[in-house]
Amino acid sequence: MAQNTIPESHRDLLDGEFATLATVGEDGYPHLSEVWFVTEGDQIALSLNTARQKVKNLETEPNCTLLILDLANPYRYLEIRGRADVEPDPDLEFARTVGAKYGSDLAVHDAPGDRRVVVRIVPARVRAVDMSG
Amino acid sequence: MAQNTIPESHRDLLDGEFATLATVGEDGYPHLSEVWFVTEGDQIALSLNTARQKVKNLETEPNCTLLILDLANPYRYLEIRGRADVEPDPDLEFARTVGAKYGSDLAVHDAPGDRRVVVRIVPARVRAVDMSG
Repeated sequence: MAQNTIPESHRDLLDGEFATLATVGEDGYPHLSEVWFVTEGDQIALSLNTARQKVKNLETEPNCTLLILDLANPYRYLEIRGRADVEPDPDLEFARTVGAKYGSDLAVHDAPGDRRVVVRIVPARVRAVDMSG
Repeated sequence: MAQNTIPESHRDLLDGEFATLATVGEDGYPHLSEVWFVTEGDQIALSLNTARQKVKNLETEPNCTLLILDLANPYRYLEIRGRADVEPDPDLEFARTVGAKYGSDLAVHDAPGDRRVVVRIVPARVRAVDMSG
């Protein structure tokens, strides 16, 4: 089932803690990593350090994909494709919003001079999968 | 830590049941799905139905990436990039090898006339992540 909204059957996955973010590198390879996220309606928002390869990839290719897996039942997941909208977070206000969800200071491992951005992914195509039936 | 072999610290993940396969579509978006896999040394091998979008993507762009997540500790995972080597599996011999791992008949949901291929991913770059420390 493909659409651009997240169906009721899979909305509980938005309460999860981990998403797999896939960006595409200049070498053509998908770059995958686990990320923390918060939701703003159907949008997924991430706080990322601009020194990371995934942010560099998004600057040249904003089309990206998130997979949110039901860790207790990996036959069930959401695949969300969308364009990444990247905005600066100079005062780390958004990083604190994400940190509040996880009880963590996101910037604690950032190096001096590192910058953080808000990456918002507006769903263009949502695939809700459940192969556990 | 990036290399082209799978380090001892993460080899247990090869005993897992699920991997996230990322291919790149003609629209530039990464396509992500959960797949079953078996290992042949450091190679990961999949049995895929050629009707699936991921196989079509691999035919035009064989560079792909697998993420194998520790479902019990999602701070720990392997990201494996490599070129997909796709070979026919006309007698479904390899599909049965994968099916033996999962106690399942992979072809049971295939439509009449569907074909299966063996997709082997030879690691070109392995990133072993553990952020749980």
